[in-house]
Amino acid sequence: MSKQRTLRIECGKPNQVIYVLGTVLNIDIYKPAPLGSQSFEVRCSPGVKCSISDLHNITVAADDAKRWTLNNGTLLVVTMEKISNDLNDNKVTIIFYGDKLDKPIDKIILQLTAVYISLDVDADRDGKVEKNNPNKGSWKWGPNGHGAVLLVNSDKEAHTTAKYDRSDDTVPIFEDLADMSQMILRTEGPKFLLPDYKLQLYISASDGKKVQVFRHDLTKMTKVLGTTMLSSVMDYTKGNNEYNFFIEGLTFPDEAIGSLVAFNLSLLEPMIVGYAPIFTEHVVFCLAPWIMTPNTLAPQEVFVCSVRDNATFLKEFTAVVEKAKCKLTVCNEDVNRNDRWIQDEIEFGYSEAPHKTFPVVFDSPRNLGLEMFPYKKLLGPDFGHVTRTSDQRSGLDSFGNLEVSPPVTVNGKEYPMGRIIIGNAFPNISDRKMTKAVRDFLYAQTVQPLIELFSDWLFVGHVDEFLTFVPAPDRKGFRLLLASPDACCKLFMKLQQEGHGEAQMFESENINAKPVKINEILSNEKLRKDNAYVQRCVDWNRDVLKKELGLDEEDIIDIPMLFKIEYLQRAGAFFPDMVNMIVLGKYLGIPKPFGPLINGECPLESAVRSALEPLGLDCNFINDFASYHLHLGEVHCGSNVLRKPFAFKWWNMEI
Amino acid sequence: MSKQRTLRIECGKPNQVIYVLGTVLNIDIYKPAPLGSQSFEVRCSPGVKCSISDLHNITVAADDAKRWTLNNGTLLVVTMEKISNDLNDNKVTIIFYGDKLDKPIDKIILQLTAVYISLDVDADRDGKVEKNNPNKGSWKWGPNGHGAVLLVNSDKEAHTTAKYDRSDDTVPIFEDLADMSQMILRTEGPKFLLPDYKLQLYISASDGKKVQVFRHDLTKMTKVLGTTMLSSVMDYTKGNNEYNFFIEGLTFPDEAIGSLVAFNLSLLEPMIVGYAPIFTEHVVFCLAPWIMTPNTLAPQEVFVCSVRDNATFLKEFTAVVEKAKCKLTVCNEDVNRNDRWIQDEIEFGYSEAPHKTFPVVFDSPRNLGLEMFPYKKLLGPDFGHVTRTSDQRSGLDSFGNLEVSPPVTVNGKEYPMGRIIIGNAFPNISDRKMTKAVRDFLYAQTVQPLIELFSDWLFVGHVDEFLTFVPAPDRKGFRLLLASPDACCKLFMKLQQEGHGEAQMFESENINAKPVKINEILSNEKLRKDNAYVQRCVDWNRDVLKKELGLDEEDIIDIPMLFKIEYLQRAGAFFPDMVNMIVLGKYLGIPKPFGPLINGECPLESAVRSALEPLGLDCNFINDFASYHLHLGEVHCGSNVLRKPFAFKWWNMEI
Repeated sequence: MSKQRTLRIECGKPNQVIYVLGTVLNIDIYKPAPLGSQSFEVRCSPGVKCSISDLHNITVAADDAKRWTLNNGTLLVVTMEKISNDLNDNKVTIIFYGDKLDKPIDKIILQLTAVYISLDVDADRDGKVEKNNPNKGSWKWGPNGHGAVLLVNSDKEAHTTAKYDRSDDTVPIFEDLADMSQMILRTEGPKFLLPDYKLQLYISASDGKKVQVFRHDLTKMTKVLGTTMLSSVMDYTKGNNEYNFFIEGLTFPDEAIGSLVAFNLSLLEPMIVGYAPIFTEHVVFCLAPWIMTPNTLAPQEVFVCSVRDNATFLKEFTAVVEKAKCKLTVCNEDVNRNDRWIQDEIEFGYSEAPHKTFPVVFDSPRNLGLEMFPYKKLLGPDFGHVTRTSDQRSGLDSFGNLEVSPPVTVNGKEYPMGRIIIGNAFPNISDRKMTKAVRDFLYAQTVQPLIELFSDWLFVGHVDEFLTFVPAPDRKGFRLLLASPDACCKLFMKLQQEGHGEAQMFESENINAKPVKINEILSNEKLRKDNAYVQRCVDWNRDVLKKELGLDEEDIIDIPMLFKIEYLQRAGAFFPDMVNMIVLGKYLGIPKPFGPLINGECPLESAVRSALEPLGLDCNFINDFASYHLHLGEVHCGSNVLRKPFAFKWWNMEI
Repeated sequence: MSKQRTLRIECGKPNQVIYVLGTVLNIDIYKPAPLGSQSFEVRCSPGVKCSISDLHNITVAADDAKRWTLNNGTLLVVTMEKISNDLNDNKVTIIFYGDKLDKPIDKIILQLTAVYISLDVDADRDGKVEKNNPNKGSWKWGPNGHGAVLLVNSDKEAHTTAKYDRSDDTVPIFEDLADMSQMILRTEGPKFLLPDYKLQLYISASDGKKVQVFRHDLTKMTKVLGTTMLSSVMDYTKGNNEYNFFIEGLTFPDEAIGSLVAFNLSLLEPMIVGYAPIFTEHVVFCLAPWIMTPNTLAPQEVFVCSVRDNATFLKEFTAVVEKAKCKLTVCNEDVNRNDRWIQDEIEFGYSEAPHKTFPVVFDSPRNLGLEMFPYKKLLGPDFGHVTRTSDQRSGLDSFGNLEVSPPVTVNGKEYPMGRIIIGNAFPNISDRKMTKAVRDFLYAQTVQPLIELFSDWLFVGHVDEFLTFVPAPDRKGFRLLLASPDACCKLFMKLQQEGHGEAQMFESENINAKPVKINEILSNEKLRKDNAYVQRCVDWNRDVLKKELGLDEEDIIDIPMLFKIEYLQRAGAFFPDMVNMIVLGKYLGIPKPFGPLINGECPLESAVRSALEPLGLDCNFINDFASYHLHLGEVHCGSNVLRKPFAFKWWNMEI
């Protein structure tokens, strides 16, 4: 729709008008008509299109040969299609007649200068700023959508004291421009313009908190918009010009922070009191969300901690990472301060714009020994960092409690980047919950809609204690693995029936644990009841996951596992928790369960192998007993994986 | 969709199951099958429906005559349709066979008790709580929508010290129940149930801030849910029962406060560790918004202040109110403390649920002399009150700057309750703006989507200084009146041309002002330029209103008016501002402009009459010169009108 502009004119006065291409001038010609006027004629230069709209909204092309009756409400509607070569080079003359049809009473002359003004962005998301995209003023999701994208400048290109590149008022280093989105103000028109007109670029106060804008001249880079600078005024003296702006996002979408940012441009006409805007347009950007990467995406780099007592574990773990041909980065004790839970401290993800993509680590509010690790070892050139803090954090804020499913389609609704999964107290009533700051942040990213599971039944309370996803060549491209006391009991009962009741768990020389017989486990009434309860809790989640991820029973694999209720009436692993594995493509690093040995084989490991190997997966059991399991975590809790981004672009999602 | 429940069973154990009508039990029968099982039979009581789902998700009805091959993944799917008469009165027997087809190896017996549990609300919005509405768990806007409605208990039935009825933990007086929404928990089933089952009603912490729930027993009313009570557990001992709850909203929708509230119900089964939920459902309420009433709605009661110097005004004003047959309430000086701007202190509206509707006054953060008026004179039985405060308030937070349009349809989109109109600084850059607290509140009400106009060019800064709406029998049912310097200049020029240039404004004995000639006005270059600027500002708003309300030129009437730029480079009325009128049905109370008298008639008044009287409107000019105009306000600023609610129900709006 063209922009309408009401224009007032006067008889006998010079009426100089700057006309912006694409607008429509509505001019009341009844009010300014001289006394006694009864009809009028309109004459235009060839570059001007005029039409008459009367009280009944009947619009007809104005015609030199024709005279029109003047009525209260008669409007002259003026448009132009070509840029003026010179100031006032187009003209509209309105001639008024009274009784005498051959003698004009008076006339009004409109001197028009047509200019082109366009604030341009990459609204078609191809990495280039096109000219005057008709959709630049709005955001639309989906493959047929439009709207420009803004990256949060969450990385740190330069070795300055600033925390992030966006932390100060300058562009720290030339490379940083590549992280920003470009915006161009293009003008075309005659060489000389009317004096004292201005161009004003401005944002709302709430948007001002989200962005910082730099203007790039040949010789310098100047901050022109930001938190305390909501407006930037430029002289409009040259008809042809190009102003280059670079924009960085200051904050990821969050509860009180919408993801859209609008930039307004006005052409200001000098008035007795300051300036009056005579043309306004706006462009819209969407802040790129933080995106999580499920286990089905290719691993790029694996992280693990070296602590006082995990040398043996590290050796076995390294072997699996090498087998998967991944880069391994070991975080040493000077940085981890004997905190081995690198899964809990951070979650790797990324942020993407058509012009640039880089990994962004989400740093949990947990902040124990590993607190400084993401700042010291991750944040850097093209490696972003975002965090949320809270005074009311609990164990549920550790990111072992933050996972993401592979892509799914549920009742026809597509989740092309999967769904974020967190654990919470529901359907229990408990004070323990993921803190609002983290939850709100996750919800606000929008592209991986959350599923909230019930994890409060666990002492540690993390979803990675009872579920994981592994890639699969068939069906939906993955399987959901769930820890299953039921499967374990059934397996042990079968072994008992087969005469292996005296076989013992924890018999290995490699661990320091009291062996326990299958018969003892099966006759332990407390353990049986504990696990019936745990199974009920896992089943609750199973039903939620089936519904929310659109899974069939065949998409789920039960991994034998036992829990015990000890701490604060909550559950912990009875033996190393096999679902708490690391997934590196087809290579799995699984906590070694140290089950009973039957003919030299562990039936727990065999059960896992026989369930997963047909999917092309390579099961590697790692001894994490002393160094992780006894500290209430396992392989997954003690490692982390940076993965490749999705090929799918988030803005192509239908929301 | 039926609720799926994964159920685990064991051979040789009693398997007593409480089945809730409407759920589907999924039972893995492969895992619990005894060693050597190869096939199975299923036998059910007549009340039980069983089917078999195998790995390939092929579901067939279980048939007594048929034996099934047992496969890994074979599920037994169980549903029931009738409530049990006695505990365990339904049975499913699964018989396992090995090699010998005539000799069962073992069997599992499931003892089923079917119960009905339903948390019920008025989801069809007819004022009555129906039984188990299938849509009770969600909210849908529109005439074909559904979802229960909750009123904010913003009134004050009882003469207690509490600020509002909702302010304490009790139901102050029986009548207060009528303001609340009812919720009923209905259960049906056998007289005796398994011991120790519980029913739990609970809400999330964020919803807990929005509501308070009372349980009504025959003899008492007990608070069971609220800000610090997120859960209420009841014994589930009787099969047939009805629990009555009454719910009051604690807060209107606002930026950080979504309008939906969910109540969850769980059936809890006793476990070794507390309880496990085996059935959950939820119902959803929407908090009723605060709704504004445009000038086209019938007036019910008119409010005005009596102050030291407005006796003459009051007399003329009263006459108009009597003519319109409205109740008039005069706020006296002991309450208004010489503050006459009752339009600025409050805005009347209402809140509506299917079971109850009452007026609610929105109290501005302005809080000058009239600060206590809404508490002392308005808040009471079935008269609600809501306010927002801010430390950063400005003149734009006075409610002369808060208006609402009549219902409109814009490009096919219906606004059946009109659109809220506020004034702001855009397209100017200025620190002065409506405070976030008020703006957020208005946006959050949703049903009258906002239009933000440019009012910062005015010294006082209110939209009612340049616009109003009057009812009309034709077109869209109303006209938009806009203050027009252009119309006034044209009128004066015409008078000058007709030889009345020496006629004077302000010549009346009833006012104490220096007369000024039409010739003087027209030759005052500063005044001319001031008004050219003002016209530009009004035109900006005209173009916005045409677009946002879908108006044609013919829907707009220009009311002659002049402004002067004096205070802080901003505009004020040069003579009493006629658009700042009070609209009482067809009766208008208009500031008397004290224009020049030509043949005993004021051409300004005549222009207004001739524009409005053809619409059936009755123009009454009131002298507000000394008592309002010279204090920078007029009739509208000094009065307020309580109007009838819309016949249209807000939940029928398509959003």
